[in-house]
Amino acid sequence: MHMSVLAPPAVATVAVHGSTGFAGQELLRLLSAHPRMHAVACTSDTRAPAQCDLAFLALPHGVSGEVGRELAGARVPVVDLSADLRAEWAYGLPELHRDDIACTAAVANPGCYATAAVLALAPIVSAGLVLSDLIVDGKSGVSGAGKTVSPRTSFTTVSEGIAPYTPVGHHHQLEIERELSALGAGPVSVTFTPHLAPFTRGLLVTAYARLAAGAAPNEIHEALAGAYDGEPFVHLVDGIRTQAVRGSNLCHVQAWVDEARGRVIVAAAIDNLVKGAAGQAIQNANLMLGLPEQTGLPAQAAWL
Amino acid sequence: MHMSVLAPPAVATVAVHGSTGFAGQELLRLLSAHPRMHAVACTSDTRAPAQCDLAFLALPHGVSGEVGRELAGARVPVVDLSADLRAEWAYGLPELHRDDIACTAAVANPGCYATAAVLALAPIVSAGLVLSDLIVDGKSGVSGAGKTVSPRTSFTTVSEGIAPYTPVGHHHQLEIERELSALGAGPVSVTFTPHLAPFTRGLLVTAYARLAAGAAPNEIHEALAGAYDGEPFVHLVDGIRTQAVRGSNLCHVQAWVDEARGRVIVAAAIDNLVKGAAGQAIQNANLMLGLPEQTGLPAQAAWL
Amino acid sequence: MHMSVLAPPAVATVAVHGSTGFAGQELLRLLSAHPRMHAVACTSDTRAPAQCDLAFLALPHGVSGEVGRELAGARVPVVDLSADLRAEWAYGLPELHRDDIACTAAVANPGCYATAAVLALAPIVSAGLVLSDLIVDGKSGVSGAGKTVSPRTSFTTVSEGIAPYTPVGHHHQLEIERELSALGAGPVSVTFTPHLAPFTRGLLVTAYARLAAGAAPNEIHEALAGAYDGEPFVHLVDGIRTQAVRGSNLCHVQAWVDEARGRVIVAAAIDNLVKGAAGQAIQNANLMLGLPEQTGLPAQAAWL
Amino acid sequence: MHMSVLAPPAVATVAVHGSTGFAGQELLRLLSAHPRMHAVACTSDTRAPAQCDLAFLALPHGVSGEVGRELAGARVPVVDLSADLRAEWAYGLPELHRDDIACTAAVANPGCYATAAVLALAPIVSAGLVLSDLIVDGKSGVSGAGKTVSPRTSFTTVSEGIAPYTPVGHHHQLEIERELSALGAGPVSVTFTPHLAPFTRGLLVTAYARLAAGAAPNEIHEALAGAYDGEPFVHLVDGIRTQAVRGSNLCHVQAWVDEARGRVIVAAAIDNLVKGAAGQAIQNANLMLGLPEQTGLPAQAAWL
Repeated sequence: MHMSVLAPPAVATVAVHGSTGFAGQELLRLLSAHPRMHAVACTSDTRAPAQCDLAFLALPHGVSGEVGRELAGARVPVVDLSADLRAEWAYGLPELHRDDIACTAAVANPGCYATAAVLALAPIVSAGLVLSDLIVDGKSGVSGAGKTVSPRTSFTTVSEGIAPYTPVGHHHQLEIERELSALGAGPVSVTFTPHLAPFTRGLLVTAYARLAAGAAPNEIHEALAGAYDGEPFVHLVDGIRTQAVRGSNLCHVQAWVDEARGRVIVAAAIDNLVKGAAGQAIQNANLMLGLPEQTGLPAQAAWL
Repeated sequence: MHMSVLAPPAVATVAVHGSTGFAGQELLRLLSAHPRMHAVACTSDTRAPAQCDLAFLALPHGVSGEVGRELAGARVPVVDLSADLRAEWAYGLPELHRDDIACTAAVANPGCYATAAVLALAPIVSAGLVLSDLIVDGKSGVSGAGKTVSPRTSFTTVSEGIAPYTPVGHHHQLEIERELSALGAGPVSVTFTPHLAPFTRGLLVTAYARLAAGAAPNEIHEALAGAYDGEPFVHLVDGIRTQAVRGSNLCHVQAWVDEARGRVIVAAAIDNLVKGAAGQAIQNANLMLGLPEQTGLPAQAAWL
Repeated sequence: MHMSVLAPPAVATVAVHGSTGFAGQELLRLLSAHPRMHAVACTSDTRAPAQCDLAFLALPHGVSGEVGRELAGARVPVVDLSADLRAEWAYGLPELHRDDIACTAAVANPGCYATAAVLALAPIVSAGLVLSDLIVDGKSGVSGAGKTVSPRTSFTTVSEGIAPYTPVGHHHQLEIERELSALGAGPVSVTFTPHLAPFTRGLLVTAYARLAAGAAPNEIHEALAGAYDGEPFVHLVDGIRTQAVRGSNLCHVQAWVDEARGRVIVAAAIDNLVKGAAGQAIQNANLMLGLPEQTGLPAQAAWL
Repeated sequence: MHMSVLAPPAVATVAVHGSTGFAGQELLRLLSAHPRMHAVACTSDTRAPAQCDLAFLALPHGVSGEVGRELAGARVPVVDLSADLRAEWAYGLPELHRDDIACTAAVANPGCYATAAVLALAPIVSAGLVLSDLIVDGKSGVSGAGKTVSPRTSFTTVSEGIAPYTPVGHHHQLEIERELSALGAGPVSVTFTPHLAPFTRGLLVTAYARLAAGAAPNEIHEALAGAYDGEPFVHLVDGIRTQAVRGSNLCHVQAWVDEARGRVIVAAAIDNLVKGAAGQAIQNANLMLGLPEQTGLPAQAAWL
């Protein structure tokens, strides 16, 4: 079921199922500027239209999996943005699984926290530079909570402060552990605590690890630089802040080593709706359709 | 040089040196509602006036220590809000050092991050419930950066995102280590990374520790509950958020245990200008002057 | 039905009906620091308890009027924060109706926009210094919209921008016209357009009027200064901003005259939950109970 | 000095003088996505490089005019974003002056408030539907104040409230009067009061006018609809809010009539850095270079 055929379509027709939520709206926004994709169907409904080159599913968790399986059965290439199929389908993190994604028709788009955490940690975990007992402190803007109206996300609740939520057992915790454990350097344990912060877009993870015996501080930086050299969207930066990736498909990464304490700190910043959702979905779709991976994706922050 | 004499003054006269910064202004705001203290001198100057029952120093780090020593030499009771004398003078965290504070005339007020981190961790560190290798992820509002005008704290820089700063080597790191190591359960190592978040007041620390062998999850909660039972300002809560302590001298604490991974997570929330600065200074001054510790201090969030 | 008897109660017992909304919560917050009032009943229910010296109604518009009439019939002094009885009962704006309020047991607390607009305009309207065709542009923080969860007040909707709402026909429009027309300088027409701005507390009105023929610019300032000289809560300021009244019962007022165009501009800033709701209700209750008008009310911004 | 030659350049080379401020940075951001312009020089310096098809000046007011005149003398087409030459050069508001702009090499880009105010009012002023005595209440995000670091624009000053500034005599007042008076319906007087609100991008004006005798409410809507029918960037909307134009070159307009009071209210919303500065500058440059007016300009909000 290889998709990356020799002749990708001049303009692929795509469907967006679940176009009313934040991720679905962002997909439509990005697709409207995509020179090689044309959205032919945007539904809040779960049923797929018959004809399209690829379908994006931005449906509620639980619903999405069923629709995804149905579409895959009907041989429609699918990128599913829900959490339903991440343990089953190809994991749509192009920087780690580019070849798999290009060769499949069924891709599960990673969670927003998992995208940032795995990009921050994978190079140093796979190189054995840190111990396997990791901590990820996440901070997300409010759009990460979705569009459902709730007192938890009202302006008067959220503004002027910060709060942790689901400090133990957030479903991205297992997703991060699964991905990092699959790197071949042994099973990884991740403590993951997300926080809700008063901004709309943007997500930062600050990951903490213990430097492995014999690992030198510069190896941390070298592992990250080596992993992301040439990557169009993952950049090592100085002075990391979520504002600098806003509106773009970028992931910024910065690492520090506290030598005296044998600690490694790696931060990664993304726009949760772009690299953390819709942008990465299009990046995956580009690969699946044989288009240049960066097509139609902003690589510059749309911002001050 | 005992201060807590049998007859505290009906109304103590106090001086505020360094009354133009955020901490100094907050001192004046709180003192204006304090029934037993009367500010007789508020100067941006560093020189102390002759006559007062106690002096607060909210001067720049570096300057404050010199003035503090001079005043102490002149037998004027002093609470110094700077970092200069924290390794020398009595450490003004009443929940841990109440008796020392009441018996001295020279108190160094803790740093804002240190206040929250030590209150979060001290009970479980001193009880030996966690390993000595701790991580503290801090998130502060912008008033923590002080009043000096800088592009780092302009609205357009700070709003709509989050960023780490001084990820290694912030001066509160050593302060936290020193305090926790002094608890008698052995030397403690702390990795501390603060973040700047888009709100004015409020500070959250999320601390991560490894559960000691043999320690049971409920012991974590029991240690915290035991330590803070009866404390006027430190409360264990459910649903911790900085907004709930805003404008008050409260410190909220909440703990979780991830049993599967052997992890303890403890969050503490304070108003960085009150319990993290001016409020705690007054709490210390109350003790030093023999007044009831809570006098004049808001124990309710001034907030929605 | 005079309330301001010779001997006000040492501590009055008060009931708060409707204690779950923002205004009700703010009442409880302020009452907790009030030295002469003690809340004996706080209900979300609409039924009044039997015994109290005064009742505050912070119930939904529509419900409140009925309960208010019932309590008044039972001779319980009432301050109703709803809009239901503002055209019937004594209008609870102490700066204009202090004597009436002190002599009645049934007071309707003004709307938040009306409080600011009437305080900005009454002195110059009643002095005949401006024409009767007024414009009031209002800007309110989100707490003004109440606690009901709605997509209109979610963080992602409100933050990072501003929007008008109910640009014609907001119910405060008639309230402002009624109050200003009752000043005796002839009927007044008010165009009133409120806006929702991304902060929690605070309300600013910018009022525009045409300078009457023969009126001199300095008369505008003199009229305002004369009207508010000695007022504990209404202050003429330079550099008006809502942040400077936050958490307090203050109303700041500033006026400018554009002589070349014959225009008067008057801005008024209040905390919509304090002077615009709960604080003013307590100010009224103080008068009704014969207590000093300022008792228990913050006259200082609780803020940076 | 006609620029709109038959054969516009395939890719025009442009210079940006003053590329470090917010407007200059936004120019570079927009130019990076412009298919027909290529920035060949970006300087913070005031001197122009020799060779380019067009120069943008985003220099400080005062400096810009001198450089502009020099460049114009050297026959380099210029769009000047400063206020220096708005009374002299072609006024770069394409919706009103499209033909003039296309036929000149020296265009003064309008001020941000003036852009919104003139677009809101011009159709109804020129049609004689309102009296000539207008009020414009402006609300701007903080980027409108420019990048210079100041306590006025620090996060702790700006957040959580709103304030008027320059309530009389802002330099955009004369600019609005000049443009509206030039419409041929008689001299116009404008009272203009801007406010600083806690968001980064976005600007709203709420304009108030008196309905002319004999004018019917529906004529207001018809005049606006007629004026902007077919305009690529000016759209009549329902539910106007600045967030809906964020990041785009759009101007949203909405009008209401309060028939009982004979009042017209017109609101206009723009992104102050795009349609209020850099986007409009590019729109002008497109016209000057003979390119399709919309080339390279976002017509969709980059936003939730």
